[in-house]
Amino acid sequence: MGWLAWERYRCDIDCKNDPKNCISEKLFIDMADRLFEDGWKELGYVYVNIDDCWSSMERDKDGRLQPDPNRFPGGIQRLARYMHDRGLKLGIYGDMGTHTCGGYPGTTLDKIEIDAQTFANWEVDMFKFDGCYSNAVEQELGYPLMSKALNATGRPIGYSCSWPAYQGGLPPKVNYTQLGQICNLWRNYGDIQDSWNSVLSIVDWFFENQDVLATAAAPGRWNDPDMLVIGDFGLSMEQSRSQMALWAIMAAPLFMSNDLRTISSGAQSILQNKMIISINQDPLGIQGRRILKEKVGIEVFWRPLSNNASALVFFSRRTDMPYRYKTSLSKLNYTTGSYKFTDVYTGKTDVLKDSTEFVVSVNPTGVVMWYVSAPGKLKYHPFLRGGKLHGPAYDAEENNFPRVFL
Amino acid sequence: MGWLAWERYRCDIDCKNDPKNCISEKLFIDMADRLFEDGWKELGYVYVNIDDCWSSMERDKDGRLQPDPNRFPGGIQRLARYMHDRGLKLGIYGDMGTHTCGGYPGTTLDKIEIDAQTFANWEVDMFKFDGCYSNAVEQELGYPLMSKALNATGRPIGYSCSWPAYQGGLPPKVNYTQLGQICNLWRNYGDIQDSWNSVLSIVDWFFENQDVLATAAAPGRWNDPDMLVIGDFGLSMEQSRSQMALWAIMAAPLFMSNDLRTISSGAQSILQNKMIISINQDPLGIQGRRILKEKVGIEVFWRPLSNNASALVFFSRRTDMPYRYKTSLSKLNYTTGSYKFTDVYTGKTDVLKDSTEFVVSVNPTGVVMWYVSAPGKLKYHPFLRGGKLHGPAYDAEENNFPRVFL
Repeated sequence: MGWLAWERYRCDIDCKNDPKNCISEKLFIDMADRLFEDGWKELGYVYVNIDDCWSSMERDKDGRLQPDPNRFPGGIQRLARYMHDRGLKLGIYGDMGTHTCGGYPGTTLDKIEIDAQTFANWEVDMFKFDGCYSNAVEQELGYPLMSKALNATGRPIGYSCSWPAYQGGLPPKVNYTQLGQICNLWRNYGDIQDSWNSVLSIVDWFFENQDVLATAAAPGRWNDPDMLVIGDFGLSMEQSRSQMALWAIMAAPLFMSNDLRTISSGAQSILQNKMIISINQDPLGIQGRRILKEKVGIEVFWRPLSNNASALVFFSRRTDMPYRYKTSLSKLNYTTGSYKFTDVYTGKTDVLKDSTEFVVSVNPTGVVMWYVSAPGKLKYHPFLRGGKLHGPAYDAEENNFPRVFL
Repeated sequence: MGWLAWERYRCDIDCKNDPKNCISEKLFIDMADRLFEDGWKELGYVYVNIDDCWSSMERDKDGRLQPDPNRFPGGIQRLARYMHDRGLKLGIYGDMGTHTCGGYPGTTLDKIEIDAQTFANWEVDMFKFDGCYSNAVEQELGYPLMSKALNATGRPIGYSCSWPAYQGGLPPKVNYTQLGQICNLWRNYGDIQDSWNSVLSIVDWFFENQDVLATAAAPGRWNDPDMLVIGDFGLSMEQSRSQMALWAIMAAPLFMSNDLRTISSGAQSILQNKMIISINQDPLGIQGRRILKEKVGIEVFWRPLSNNASALVFFSRRTDMPYRYKTSLSKLNYTTGSYKFTDVYTGKTDVLKDSTEFVVSVNPTGVVMWYVSAPGKLKYHPFLRGGKLHGPAYDAEENNFPRVFL
């Protein structure tokens, strides 16, 4: 959880005319100050991550990457310490290839060790390894090599791999078992843009491929559907609530890319919703699934959580008016019993029998999201009963939960 | 200007389960109360317009349309008087055809006179005539006949024709000269939905066809790109500002379709922006145009206004980050001189020479909109100079400005 520069600030290096928004140490210090002072850090948003266009166009005389001297006059290590002094962490970016996507020096195979060591020397906490300007063979060598090189530094550095996104995101080209062994998170799909169409295309792809993707995820190894664009320009409040809810269902890393200096209170309250964050960060780390697609444009998503609980999201793809969706927990394959639920956005709570019909009013492009406390024992097989719900049975036993959380 | 039920409330007739939102006299009274009490009326939002699904499924024993007795127990005339008592106006809906789009009784050719007289008897102020369940020949007879029938009642009734939307919206199928003679406004294109894609498709169509459409518009006869969905669920604040700005450039009728009982203060302040409303309602009634499409995704729109003034809109189709667009008034074909401009959303004012280069930062899917006071004499021919701007010269002299404003 944290903040990542790319979606909102791209490769803006025009510090002369756009000093507030250019990629410079000032931008990252500004965001760190906001994370520290505005209640973000306590909620878990601790990473401040640099993306492309931070470096000088030349390596130094010893072949090491170096930051642009005008935009990062204090250097990366001082920036890392600024984060650490405030209980925050610093992330940085590189590219497995001859150049970064923005045209800055890349990390070719022969530079992997020196770059990993440079980042460790700078006391960096996370590293995103992009894949422009390399081919599949180089990537197949480079991404595991970087994993080894990072581990060899002895410094814990979260490792974000763009590799699968460059290979179409799906087996057989992508080996998720291997990715889980070498990366902490990985970008499976294209870059997010500041638009609802972009969010929808990501949601579509991830849930259409949920059988492959959900089993790849576990604590310490996560699918990454890309940044939260909540607080930017393209999403309505409903759509912002939907991105937050669906990213929580997906157990997605939560990296905001927005302007924390000017964010609206509405967007901030969505991003700081404690119950959704706790669902997103649930220690079981099981990635949720879409369990129903209704012809009327309502879809239901479900994620099993610790403490016998679960999360439900009712999502509307409609563009007309609020839709009154009638269902029951038993229709959603909850087993017999009474359940307490809390609407995570309104705070409303109630108790429902599995058989009780209820209506949720779902706004166009919006969600209703519930945290559901189960009555009885842990129940990982809600798909085993009827033929109505799609997707195979989820087998929690096939997951193991190694390593640290991101 | 006013409020129209369709986009937000559709054909919701379920007053048992959804009493606040169903099509009933209560809904229109609620909206009238809001228009009256929350500052809308003073700004010009005076119409409260019923759309489809208001009527009984049967005509009465004398062949007259009658409202659904359960949902409109007080009848339409009482509702009209409720509006009039508050300085508001009531609009109603019918369909040139065997049935309305929602399946209610339509107005076939033989019913046109009786229905026009019924509406006049009820003291209705506006009438939208939809076109489901009729063919082109019937429409060609029916729309002019209804115009005559409405005029024959002696009551001033604004006449909104859906006719051109059923004929593709363009000549030769559509005769805009005739439409201007018989209708006060007309729907040229498909229904708006609560989504940015829908707004964009409307903007695209209207400005791609601006040469045909702009010359059809004048006071008392307007192209209608459909309702404002600001305050609903699908548009971000930026996109809401864009719809308002572009509808003002188009000299579009401003009919909101939203819930005035629960609208956010942000949406309300956009809809109640006095300067944009005055631009929209400018007495010259000249429909504006897109004057530039830049490859980088910035478009510039321009509308000539009374008092030697004009409106400029800088619009971004980008979905990445704010774009710093550099231009000058002379590049936008303003003639030599100094101009005062006011940013209609921020209130910022400044003076610019035509030759002065300036930068506007336009947010993704957002606008910057200026009210520009011209220095010298009225200047209707900004397209005559360079070859860079597209669209033919605008000839104000070919417009005449008959009849009442809507």
